[in-house]
This record gives sequence, structure tokens and C-alpha cells, in this order.
Amino acid sequence: MSNQNNQILKNTNAQILDEFNASIMFDKELYAQDIKGSIAHSAMLCEQGILTKDEQEAIEKGLLQVKNEIESGEFKFSLVYEDIHMAVESRLTEIIGEPGKRLHTARSRNDQVATDFRLYVQEKSLSIKSQLKELVETFVNVASKHTKTLIPGMTHLQHAQPLNFGYHMLAYANMFKRDYERFESSYERNNYSPLGSAALAGTPHNINRDSTCEKLGFKAPTAHAMDTVSDRDFALEILFNISTSMMHISRIAEELITWSSYEFQFVRMSDEYATTSSIMPQKKNPDVPELLRGKTGRVYGNLISLFTVMKGLPLAYNKDTQEDKEGVFDSVKTIEISISILNEVIKTMIVNVDKMESACKIGHLSATDLADFLVQKKGMPFRTAYYITKDVVTCANSLNKDISELSIDEIRSANDELKEIDDEIVMYLDLRNSMNARTSFGGTSTQQTEIQIENFKKWLENN
Amino acid sequence: MSNQNNQILKNTNAQILDEFNASIMFDKELYAQDIKGSIAHSAMLCEQGILTKDEQEAIEKGLLQVKNEIESGEFKFSLVYEDIHMAVESRLTEIIGEPGKRLHTARSRNDQVATDFRLYVQEKSLSIKSQLKELVETFVNVASKHTKTLIPGMTHLQHAQPLNFGYHMLAYANMFKRDYERFESSYERNNYSPLGSAALAGTPHNINRDSTCEKLGFKAPTAHAMDTVSDRDFALEILFNISTSMMHISRIAEELITWSSYEFQFVRMSDEYATTSSIMPQKKNPDVPELLRGKTGRVYGNLISLFTVMKGLPLAYNKDTQEDKEGVFDSVKTIEISISILNEVIKTMIVNVDKMESACKIGHLSATDLADFLVQKKGMPFRTAYYITKDVVTCANSLNKDISELSIDEIRSANDELKEIDDEIVMYLDLRNSMNARTSFGGTSTQQTEIQIENFKKWLENN
Amino acid sequence: MSNQNNQILKNTNAQILDEFNASIMFDKELYAQDIKGSIAHSAMLCEQGILTKDEQEAIEKGLLQVKNEIESGEFKFSLVYEDIHMAVESRLTEIIGEPGKRLHTARSRNDQVATDFRLYVQEKSLSIKSQLKELVETFVNVASKHTKTLIPGMTHLQHAQPLNFGYHMLAYANMFKRDYERFESSYERNNYSPLGSAALAGTPHNINRDSTCEKLGFKAPTAHAMDTVSDRDFALEILFNISTSMMHISRIAEELITWSSYEFQFVRMSDEYATTSSIMPQKKNPDVPELLRGKTGRVYGNLISLFTVMKGLPLAYNKDTQEDKEGVFDSVKTIEISISILNEVIKTMIVNVDKMESACKIGHLSATDLADFLVQKKGMPFRTAYYITKDVVTCANSLNKDISELSIDEIRSANDELKEIDDEIVMYLDLRNSMNARTSFGGTSTQQTEIQIENFKKWLENN
Amino acid sequence: MSNQNNQILKNTNAQILDEFNASIMFDKELYAQDIKGSIAHSAMLCEQGILTKDEQEAIEKGLLQVKNEIESGEFKFSLVYEDIHMAVESRLTEIIGEPGKRLHTARSRNDQVATDFRLYVQEKSLSIKSQLKELVETFVNVASKHTKTLIPGMTHLQHAQPLNFGYHMLAYANMFKRDYERFESSYERNNYSPLGSAALAGTPHNINRDSTCEKLGFKAPTAHAMDTVSDRDFALEILFNISTSMMHISRIAEELITWSSYEFQFVRMSDEYATTSSIMPQKKNPDVPELLRGKTGRVYGNLISLFTVMKGLPLAYNKDTQEDKEGVFDSVKTIEISISILNEVIKTMIVNVDKMESACKIGHLSATDLADFLVQKKGMPFRTAYYITKDVVTCANSLNKDISELSIDEIRSANDELKEIDDEIVMYLDLRNSMNARTSFGGTSTQQTEIQIENFKKWLENN
Repeated sequence: MSNQNNQILKNTNAQILDEFNASIMFDKELYAQDIKGSIAHSAMLCEQGILTKDEQEAIEKGLLQVKNEIESGEFKFSLVYEDIHMAVESRLTEIIGEPGKRLHTARSRNDQVATDFRLYVQEKSLSIKSQLKELVETFVNVASKHTKTLIPGMTHLQHAQPLNFGYHMLAYANMFKRDYERFESSYERNNYSPLGSAALAGTPHNINRDSTCEKLGFKAPTAHAMDTVSDRDFALEILFNISTSMMHISRIAEELITWSSYEFQFVRMSDEYATTSSIMPQKKNPDVPELLRGKTGRVYGNLISLFTVMKGLPLAYNKDTQEDKEGVFDSVKTIEISISILNEVIKTMIVNVDKMESACKIGHLSATDLADFLVQKKGMPFRTAYYITKDVVTCANSLNKDISELSIDEIRSANDELKEIDDEIVMYLDLRNSMNARTSFGGTSTQQTEIQIENFKKWLENN
Repeated sequence: MSNQNNQILKNTNAQILDEFNASIMFDKELYAQDIKGSIAHSAMLCEQGILTKDEQEAIEKGLLQVKNEIESGEFKFSLVYEDIHMAVESRLTEIIGEPGKRLHTARSRNDQVATDFRLYVQEKSLSIKSQLKELVETFVNVASKHTKTLIPGMTHLQHAQPLNFGYHMLAYANMFKRDYERFESSYERNNYSPLGSAALAGTPHNINRDSTCEKLGFKAPTAHAMDTVSDRDFALEILFNISTSMMHISRIAEELITWSSYEFQFVRMSDEYATTSSIMPQKKNPDVPELLRGKTGRVYGNLISLFTVMKGLPLAYNKDTQEDKEGVFDSVKTIEISISILNEVIKTMIVNVDKMESACKIGHLSATDLADFLVQKKGMPFRTAYYITKDVVTCANSLNKDISELSIDEIRSANDELKEIDDEIVMYLDLRNSMNARTSFGGTSTQQTEIQIENFKKWLENN
Repeated sequence: MSNQNNQILKNTNAQILDEFNASIMFDKELYAQDIKGSIAHSAMLCEQGILTKDEQEAIEKGLLQVKNEIESGEFKFSLVYEDIHMAVESRLTEIIGEPGKRLHTARSRNDQVATDFRLYVQEKSLSIKSQLKELVETFVNVASKHTKTLIPGMTHLQHAQPLNFGYHMLAYANMFKRDYERFESSYERNNYSPLGSAALAGTPHNINRDSTCEKLGFKAPTAHAMDTVSDRDFALEILFNISTSMMHISRIAEELITWSSYEFQFVRMSDEYATTSSIMPQKKNPDVPELLRGKTGRVYGNLISLFTVMKGLPLAYNKDTQEDKEGVFDSVKTIEISISILNEVIKTMIVNVDKMESACKIGHLSATDLADFLVQKKGMPFRTAYYITKDVVTCANSLNKDISELSIDEIRSANDELKEIDDEIVMYLDLRNSMNARTSFGGTSTQQTEIQIENFKKWLENN
Repeated sequence: MSNQNNQILKNTNAQILDEFNASIMFDKELYAQDIKGSIAHSAMLCEQGILTKDEQEAIEKGLLQVKNEIESGEFKFSLVYEDIHMAVESRLTEIIGEPGKRLHTARSRNDQVATDFRLYVQEKSLSIKSQLKELVETFVNVASKHTKTLIPGMTHLQHAQPLNFGYHMLAYANMFKRDYERFESSYERNNYSPLGSAALAGTPHNINRDSTCEKLGFKAPTAHAMDTVSDRDFALEILFNISTSMMHISRIAEELITWSSYEFQFVRMSDEYATTSSIMPQKKNPDVPELLRGKTGRVYGNLISLFTVMKGLPLAYNKDTQEDKEGVFDSVKTIEISISILNEVIKTMIVNVDKMESACKIGHLSATDLADFLVQKKGMPFRTAYYITKDVVTCANSLNKDISELSIDEIRSANDELKEIDDEIVMYLDLRNSMNARTSFGGTSTQQTEIQIENFKKWLENN
């Protein structure tokens, strides 16, 4: 090969390598955290007499200028700087000269990146938590409008017992409340400042980690430098929390899709949240819930990615860990937009009360009530009542009726044990009565549902 | 096909189907929880006047007999009973007759299985937590013996800075402490009683969920029946916690394997925890750490399995959820045995202090100290000090020495800026001094390490 | 601690360790492959003059006796033997003495286990392939009964265009045919004999790998000993193939569940494949399809498990690899039973032709035909035709009709461009005509569907 | 809320929704495939008389102009167009007017996207395959330089038997050759044209799928329209193939990292492929292999993502499937750059022959040779020879020697059975002899290694 070609090849390789090594094209996402961390670090260095007041002021001013340049789009990100930390520091030194070179005193890229990334995860945990609260509120609001709307409660996608639709909505409020609690808990558990851990072993400089910790809003400094630079538990936790939330979102999405079908017609997506076909002009597709369901895949993938990266890594820092960020950024963006969108979808969906209520008349939804009646009023063992109920169901089927539509005579004819059953059984088989009979704590009766709504309202006020 | 063949085929199909549907071959693991739950339920039914005292006593006695039969191996599990709940109830009814049939009053298999499984997860969370505490203690104990043993601290598997080996061990103590906290947190977050949720909507029976809740040791009853029977967040959380712990275990395992190589020889597995080759009589293989590392795969897999199962499931109960248990049982057993084994491995490993300390003399581990010295004592910007240090390293390499072995004259000759450097620099380059210089909070100095050990001892006492 | 306690503890630890290390409790699954491999090995050793004829005969006879003992249940598996290979060899030596000790000549546990496991995977690839063929046949058979049964073809779970149900069934026949091809392909790609690779480097003994290869039914010996003992690609491939098949199974399962709902009622599971509720006597739940769908989770998990295990393993053999088997065994069993069960479910499902056909009248399924008509017959650009069609749909909606039910006058009134449209348009909007119009290769018309069925029948004959 | 605020909110929601729904920001990657597909489609429509020659020419010219605009950066991608298909078609219609609207005749976005994506996957399968071939060649070239360089072959990261380093390199050549074969096989298996499947059921237009198939370079049209629009097996296959390749890459990466450590020093990364520390000037870190190892995580994640997306999707097309592309694009880019980089790393690494060879003298690497000698020459059973060898190892250890360094007298003293052993045993214990003794097919002897290299060279020529 000629020398010239050789040189070209070398340059190409060098470029590919830069692209491979560099993280700046994604970790620029962390510019604000990086600058915040550096300002706190410089202020502490000044307090400790490691930087002069003038130096620190120059640094802080310079960093804020870099921030402005980034936010105005003036700053040109380039692979030359490899990562956001070098990019900011290099530009700072261009602007302020000598003092810029002193900023990295008593700090390593290892604790710097750990700090920036953790700040990001902590900030996002709070904002996602707050989005989840809004989402809970939306479900509670829809619930409060439908505490008397009957809907067939399903198990195995088969009609089981009559619920009110508000109650069904509250199931999701409970899921997203648990998600909220998980973000709260992981936020607290990881709220420690990595800054000052240096490369892996701390530093001989007379730094004050409590000071930077306080400036950055953490609870306390992390306890062990080596653990700190290699720890990505906080990133795994947010990926897990997001996965669990997206799993919940996939469940309501599945229900919305099913409910939007011609066969169910329980709800209709508002026109904004349904799209049309490029070939079938008559269609309105629940694309949005489908995408919500589909996006579950990527957040599961991001979780398993980071677990894979971390498996078997020796201490302390390894470059593998650079792979921790893109997945987290992607999962964070996915959950943020998914919650926003779901929130609007739920707010704007059109509930087809008539369809829901008429659907309750299929499937003998009050069968359990009959069994319960026989147990409660007639003192039968449950298993016996169960078999008698089966006969009533068979009888209703043969009459092409739902058991809620049977007359007292029809009921009495179904099984010898029922021959002399009291009239009131008819009342027990009524669907709305059936729903309202479930007054046990956490049950579906309108009264219980309203208590649950009240509890949620209190929680929303206090959180 | 002849009728006879047809019949045989049908029987075979029926058997395959039973095998496919039945969960008893794995959910028998829950027998104790199932019986505990049923006793609590029957006692509550009696308190509420739904069962008579005689009935309740018969049930409780019967259930305890079933428990005995299971624990003595007398009980024959059979696919006929499909699941552990039916198996126990059927046997109970065989023993005590009529009252047995009343036990299922105001209860469904849906809340029963949710209760049993949650009891299991909660009990295991506590016991794993307690194992993790022991493991932390072991690492702290080893640490306390080695706060002065030098070991090369590595990043990128390259010598970086000198640590003490105790400090390195404490990194793991910190990881397993975080794991402990995660189990504690998920235990608290999920400590709610599902019992009384019934099929999906609560029950019209006059039950008292607070009573069963208290009997079973939960904090409060769950708030929403439908959510409760479909919720498997608690199972996902334990799978995630176990995955994170196993990830940490895989990291110490990797280090033990590397450290056991002929090239490192930092530690040796005790004979019990190393095995020999079937063909190479000279070998001692670190099979145990390798298996620990390998077992990470299965717990990650179990996590992704359950996430997959739960994705897009409509409310409330679906049979898919039956797939929640085997993975959890497997991950629980894996982490239990892995912690036990790792605990013993760490306790019994032979630390090769000489090898660790002599390894520190390779790689110019005190190079950062030189840079820090120039910054701290000479007021140089870090970036300048960094480049001077590079020259000293080059000089040492040309002399085939480690920089900790350079004379003051050799140092002075390395770079013009060092021409008149004070003698004390030699002291700064000493490896033990270098380690002890890192006195920042969380740093590696012996003194800091001892403080950290004290903090752990307090934590161990108070938890 | 007293010495006695100490001893007890040591014993307990030893037992835990044995349990941890030993693979015999799961790798006994490989007994037949192990014995087959050992017989082939001994026969080759004899051919090469390394064993005498007497020795070889003793070994072969002994091994067959061990096999009998295992199959009759006489053989007691014990943790003492660690793995199936040691268990078989130990028992062999008990039975035949000295010659048993010579069997391991020129072989290592590394190539032995690689051989046994690969034999297993290859045998299972063939048997699963053959099950998939049966499944394809079942779908083709159902398809051939329903080439004229209308069903609404859906996208986004919304009615889109009319299909015939046979055509819908053939979609699955195509998926399972692709699965078949994947098993075939991975079988061929991995059909190489590991035996004779020894520990990692081959052997100085004068062995003949072609001979054992032929005896074991492989195509050729593997090319590189070190690669061979560390290669688990064949295991990953079967796990991937199974995952893809289960994904397909989860899709038909989802459809069966949806179609079984009260709202759809397109199909009904035969009584054997639907189960009842413990509390709701009226219910028939599609438990079997739900379990099929749920079992997707475990096979995905097993795939990710092995990928995790293999990540970053240095050459050649590491004990981590012991974790390769359980997941494969579990996935194999899962797919075997799942295909069997699905096969029966499809064979026995009751197709509700009336419901399917009447459902086609909802959703303007022939809207595309109108657009296509305007393009084909009137020469309109597709995008223009699309918008005119939209007007016809709006018109039909306002009349509360499906467009297939519009009169020619109603159509003409819908948009100015249609004012003088020919009568024949009505014919184009007929649902059955619409289905039969799609005669393009791979289309849904009855005629095309029948061609496809014929092609499948040829394939079934030739495979 | 004021009306104005309301409007702003609505606009914001609309924008978020567009961002959520639109795929254009990633599927623009498919512009070339989309235009290629559209040209083929228009040409076929013209052949079939559905488009006039003029129309077709206008379309083709217009599409090529759009392609130019995209490639020159002139084309502005906007969320307005939702996806690349609409973006191209809209721009085409802007340029050429009316005929642009006729392009979508007899086509749906469903088959269009399936075609574009499959074209992409097929093209990438070929190019990755070709990269893998280059990588094999690189390993073979390095191997051919080191067929006599001794290196300790390891199992369990413990010295086991002496290999030549060329042989070790060939292990990877074998892995990447298998990867090559997998890409070849999936390419063939999926080489079918989706175009003409339309929305889900084919089309009533008189199209010719064979014609577009041929123009696009596929083997045949797919057999079933509905299956085709919902099939993503080809995407799963490439994700799996990439995962397996990255797993192999992670293994060589792990070895390079270990070998680069101060303790091993078997190889050194060329300066381009090692980086320095921001705080430790003496360090050279194997960042590149670490990143290669770390990037395994993301490709595993992408595989599990798509499997999650596809689980339980009903037929035919669902919007969830839009989530199929980003993961594939990411995995493709990752493997492309990873193979390129690894190729250079291997080409440029500095092999430390002395270190490798001197390392062989630790760990009694020829112990198996002693055992084999006793079996072959003395007719001992392997198990007996094994125990005698153990004694020789013990003896060598007590003399602080490697067994390859023992004198004949020392050997004879180790065990009574060896008292009169022939001199030639010493020769058998020589390390190079030990390596060269492994002449079995696939073994490590230099001669065998050279045969294997020859075979690879033939393969490289013929593929």
C-alpha cells in the first residue's frame, strides 16, 4: 500500500476510533449537571484555601458563560473533546486561562462523572415522581365521575363480577401510586454525593465533601471512594422503576386497545389520540396506546443492558461503565413522554357508559352473589352453594337469559334446594346491587370506591 | 384410528394437559404460607360469626394435621389437585368433612394465592436481608485485619493508586449494605395484606381484613381488591433486588478469580472452595467463584421473565400470572446459597500479603501523589503538574524503576521545573505514605478505613 | 464455639457447597447421551489399539447396565458424584473394575460434557422440528375447512378488510414453518462432534475423531479443540429458536383469548382446554392459551440468562458454563409441551362461523375496495380516491349502515365525484367479493388461499 | 384556565404527541431503501399498465431527486411527515404533482415499511458478514505468525496446558466464522420480498410481485400477506446474530484486558487503542477492549426489547411494531464499529512473546503429558496415572520447580511406581514437546495449527 493510502487509512481509523471512544455525543445531556458540580467544587476549593477568591470567581463566571453558550446553541460539540467534562473544561480554559487548569484539583473524571450522572438521575427521579402524581390525579378524577357506571369486571378476559368503572380506574391509580413510592424510595436511598471520591481512593488534598454535598443538594457524602466510582446501583434502580411503570402503562394500554375494538366499544380515544390508515379511510386506530405498549420493550431492554454491562466488572472504574448513560437517558425520555401522553389519553377518552352497562348483562356476573347468598343466609357450605349456583346458570342459559334477569320462579325451578327460596334472592342477583354489595375494605361498592377516592385526594394533598 | 387408541390418546392428552395446567409441583413450596393464611382466615370468619367456634377449631386442627403430613413426607402431592391450595383444602375436607367446605367462604383463589405468595416474598426478604448483614460483617472483619496491607488499587485492571486491602474489602461491604437497604425498603413498601380481596372486587360477606392482616403480620390491608389480585410488583422487586445483589457477587467473584491466577496470586481459595481437574492433577480451580459469577445469568433471566409475563396483561387476574412463582423460587434459592457460599469463601480465603504489597511496586502508583504535591506545595495548576509527572514516570521507566524507588537526584533530573524540588518529595512518593495520604472522607488511608470500619460496626449493632 | 459445633458447621457448609457445586441433580437428564458418547469413545479407543477388545466389551456392557439401572429407577443419584459423568463412570468401575478406569483415556470432562450437551441439543432440535411440522399441518387442516368463512381482518385490533378464516390460520402455518426452518438450519450448522477435543488442546493419544463422529451421527469433528470446549453457540441458538417459536405461540394465544371473550365469541375452547373458577361457577376461562402466553416469559429469560453467562468469559472452559444446561432443559420442555398443547387446542377449538361473519358487517371493511375501484376503473390517483371513500364512510355512518349495505343511490349521494358512478360499485362493496378480489400472490381470496394450502401440503409431504 | 393558556397547552400536547407518534427521526435511516422500493413498485405498476410510461418516468426521476436532496443535506426532515415514507411521497408530489399521488396504488404503508426494513436488514447482513470475514482473516494472519509461540492455555483462568498463541487466536477465527455462517443463513432464510402484501390481505390490483421481487434482489415474494406485514422474525434474527457476535467480541476483549494487566503483560494495546488517565499520568488503559466488552450490554438489550414488543401481538399490523427499528439500527451500528475496531486492535497489538513463554513455566503445564505417558507407554489406567502425576507435582512444588524442570532422578523419587521409569519421560515433560504432542485433529500442535490455518485460507478464498 502506498504511504499516502496508508495515511488516509490511519486517519479513517482514527476517526472511527474517536467516534467509538467518545461519549460526548450523548453525555452532553449532562452539561448542566457538570457545570453545577464544577461550580460547587470550585467554591469548596476556595473555602478550603485551595483556590483564591479571584480564581474561583473567574471559574464560576467562566462556567456560567459556557452554560450560556451551550444553551444558546453557540457551543460546538466536537469529538475532539471526547466527553462533556473535557469539553466544558477546555472551553473554560480558553475563556479564563490559567485558573481553568486549577479546577480539576482534587477531583478525577471518575468522581466527576459519577456526580453528574447521579445528579441527573436524582433530578429525573423527582420530576418523574411528580408526573406520576399527576397521573394518579387524572385516574382519580375519571374515577370520581364513574363510581356508579357499571362495567363487567374481568378475569381471564371473561366477565366475572360487576364493578363500577371508577373502581376499575382506581386500580391504576394504585399502581402509579406504588410507582411514585418507588421513585421516592430510590431517590432517598441514593441521595449521597460522590464528589470528592477522586479516582478511586480519595485525595490527599484538604477538601470538604460536606460542603460540596450541601451545595449539590445531597443528604451526605458517599462513604467509600472506591465503591462510589464503580457504583451504578442508582442507575439500575431508576431503570427498574421505569420498567415497572411502563409495565403498568402497558396494561392500561392493552385495555384501552381492547376496549376500543368494535367488539367492546367501551371507550373511544379522542380524535387526537387515534390515527387513520394510509389505505383504509374508515379506520381510527388506537396507535397511541399501541405505542405506549410497544415502548415497554425498550425500557426492559435498557435495564437488561446495564445489568449485562455491570456483570463481573472488577473494581474500581472500567470504561465499560461509559455504556451506562444512553440507556438511562432513553428510558427517562420514554417514561416522561409516555406518562404525559397517557395522562392526556385518559383525560380525553370518551367513555361509552351504555356499552359498558349493557355488557354486564352477559355472563351471569351476579353468580357469585347467589352463592354468597346461599352461604350467608342459608348457612350452606361454600362448595355446596357453588354447585347449586351452577344449576341456576345452566337454567338461565337454557332460557337464553342472564341470571340477573331470572324470575323468582325460574330460580326456584333450577335446583331442588332452591324450591322454597325467599323472594329477596332476586334482589341479590340485580347487577347494581351485586356491585354495591361488595363493601369489604378495598371492595368495589360505590360507597367503598368513594372512600378510596377520598383517601387518594388526601394523599394527593399531602404529597 | 380404533376407539381404543383414541381413548389412549385422549388419556395421554389429558395427562399432558394436567401437567401443563397444574402448578402444584412447584407451588407446594408455599404450603406453610397457605396453611398460615387459611388459619388466619378461619379465625377471622369465626370472630365475625361466619364460622362457629367448633368449625373453626376443626379447621385449624385439620390444617395443622395437613401441615404435619406434608412436613413428614406423608402427604402425596398429585397433579389431581392442580395447585397447593386445592391440595390442602381437599385433604382438609377429607379429614374434617363439612367444615372444610366452609373455609373458602369470602375468599377466592385469587386473593389466596396473592396472600401466600406475598407472605413467601416477605419472609424471604427478611431472611435474605439478614444473610446480607452477615456478609457485610464478614467483609468488615476481613477488612479490619488488613487496614495496613497494601494492594494496588486498579482502574481498567491497571495499577492506579495504592490502597489498603481492608479498604478494598469495605467497597463490597458498602454494596451489600445497599442491597440490605433495598430488601428492607421493598419489604416495607409491600407489607400489605391481600387477604379479603376475593376474586377481584371484594366480597359482600362481613369480613374483617384488619384482623387477618394483623394475624399474618402485615402492616395494613391492601387498598384495592382488583389491583391486589393482579399486582406482582412485590415479586418484581425481590427479583430486581436479587439481581442487583448477584451483580455485586459477580464482581467480587471476578476479582477472586483474577486474584487466584498464577499471574496475580493475591489470594488463594481455601481447599474446600477450589476444585481439581479430572485430567490435570496439578490444578486448583476457583470453581466456586466461577459458579457464583455464572449464576448471575439465571437471576437476570428470572427478572426479565416476569417482566415479560406482566407486559400488557389486562386486569384483573390472568392465568399467565401462574408463571410468577418458579422464577422467584429459583432466584431466592440462588441468592440464599450464593450468599452463604460467598460468606464462607471470604472467611476462609488465604490472603497473600507479600504478593499484594510487592505488586504495588509496579506501575508508578504514587504518580498522582507527585502531581498532587506539585499542586499543593508548589501551587502549580493540576494540568501542568500532570505533565511534569509524566516526565518523572518516563525517567523512572528509563531507569527500570518504579517512581517510588527514585532518588531525589533522579527526580530532580526528570524535568527542569523539578531541579530544585525539596527532599520531602521522596517521602510523598513512598507507597505506604501515598495510601495514608488519602485522608479525605471515604478515602483509603488506614485512619479513614478504620473510621469506616467503626461506622460499620455501629451499623451492624443497630440493625 | 465448641469443637463439636465447629464440626457440625463444617459438615453443613460442606453439604451446602456440594449442593452448590454439583450439577448431577439436573445434568442427569443427559445420562443417555453420556452413555452413548462413552460407548462410541471406547469403541474408537479399541479400534485404535488403546483398549483391548475385552476391555471395550466390558465397558460397553457395563455402560448398558448402568443405563438400565438409571431407566429402571434403581440407580441412586447422589451429590457425591457431582455430575452425571462421574456418576456413570464411578458406577461403571464398581461393576467392571479396572477397565472402567481406562475409559477416560484421551478424553476430558470438558469435551465429554460438550459432546453430551450437543447430542441433547441436536436430538431435541430434530424432535421439536417434527412437532412444528405437525403443528403446521394442524393449522393447514383447520385452514382448509374455512377458506370461505369470513372473518374481519384486523390491524390495530380494528376491523380492516374481510379475510377468510382459513387464510388467517395460514398466517400461523407460515410462522411455524419458518420456525421449522430455523431448527433445521441450526441443526445443520452445529452438527459437529466435540469428542476428542480433550481438556482444551487435543490429546497426544492416537485417537480417531472421525470414528466417534460417525458413531454419534455428527457430520464432522469440530475444527478446534479450545473453541469447542468453550463454545455454547449451539445452546444459544436453540434458546433463540425456542424464544421465537414461543413468541409466535403467544400471538395465537392472545388471539384465542380475545376471540374467546363474550364480546368477540369468534371461537370457544373445547371444554378440556378451558377451566372453571373456584368462586364463579358460570365462568369458562381460556387458561390454556393464557399459560401458553405466559410461558413466553421463561423462555425469553432462559435466553438472556445464557447470554449473560457467556459474556466476557475468557477461554477456554470456565465453571460458569455449568449454568448452560438448566435453562436449555427448561426451554426445551416448555416448547415441547406448548406445541403439543397448542396443537390440541387448535384441533379442538369450536369456530363460531356466524359470529365471525356477522362481525364483518361492522367497520366498513370494503372501504379499500371502493378506493381501489376508483383507482382501477376511474383512473383516479389513490390519494384522491382515498378522500372520496372517506365521504362514503361518513355517509354510511350517518345512515347507521355499513358501506357494504349502501344502495347505489346512497353511494352516489355521498360525494359529487360519485354522482354518476356505475351500478357495479355495489358489487365491489360486497364483503365476500371484497375478500375474493384480493387475488394477488399471497392474498386472501379463497382461490389464493387454496393454492397456498396446496403448497403447504406439498411441503408437508416433502419434509 | 384562560382560553389562551388552554390553546398553548393544546399546542404543546399536540407537539409532544407528534414527537411520540412520529418515527421519522429514526426511520429516515431507511430513505435509500424506501426510494429503491418505490422505484421498483412504480416500474412494476407501469409494466402492468397501472401507470403510464410517462407517469413512471416522472416518479422515478422525482424519487431520485428526493434521494439527492436527502444525501446533500438539503432535505429538511420534519415531524409533520410522521415517517420517512410520507416524507418521501410528499416531497415527490411537491416536485412532480399528480403522478406522485398514484405511486401508492396497490401498496400500503404496512408492506412498504416491511419491504424497506427487510431490505435494510438484508443489506446489513451482507456487509456485516463481509466484515466478519475480514476479522477472521486478521485472526488467521496473527495466528500464522505465532504457531510456535508458547502461551499457557487456561481453564478457570488457571494454567492448564501449553498452547501456541497462533492456536489461541484461531479459536476466535472459528467463532467469527460461525457468526459469518449465521448471517449467511439468516440472509438466505429471510430473502423474500414483502412488497405487494398491501395492508394485510393482498390487493385486487393486477400487480406482479415477481417483478418487484426481482428488481429488489429478493429470491421470491413472501407467501402470505397477513403474515408478512406482522412478521419481524428477520429483525429478531439479525439482533440475535449480532448478540452472539458481540458475545464473542466480549470474550476476546476480556482476554485483551487481562493480558494487558501488569500481572500478565502478554500483550500491549498499540498506543492508538489505549488511553490515558485524567489524573494518573503513568497509566495506559485498555479502554477500547473495555468498551467492546461493555457494548455487549446494549445489543443484548435490543434483542430482549424486540422480543418484548412482539410478545402477544394479535395479527396483523400493530403500531407497537414501530418500535422494531431503533434497536436494530443501534445493534447494527454497534457491531459494525465494533468489528472494525477489534480488527485494528488485533492487527496492531504488540505480542509479548517472552512473557507468554516464561509464564508457561508456572503451573506444571505438562502434568497431563506425564499422565498420558504413563497410560500410553506403561499401560496404566488413566485414573492411576492421574494419582501418580499428582505425586510428581507435589515433589516439584517441594523443590520449587516446575515439573518441566525436574531431572530424571527427581521424577523417579516422587512415587514408587516411577522408580525405574525411562529417561525419555523428561522429554515428554518439555513444554514445547508437550504442545507439539497434541496432534489429534483440532489439537494445538504447531503442525495441526498450520493445517487449520491452511483450511482457513482456503475458506477465505472461497467465500
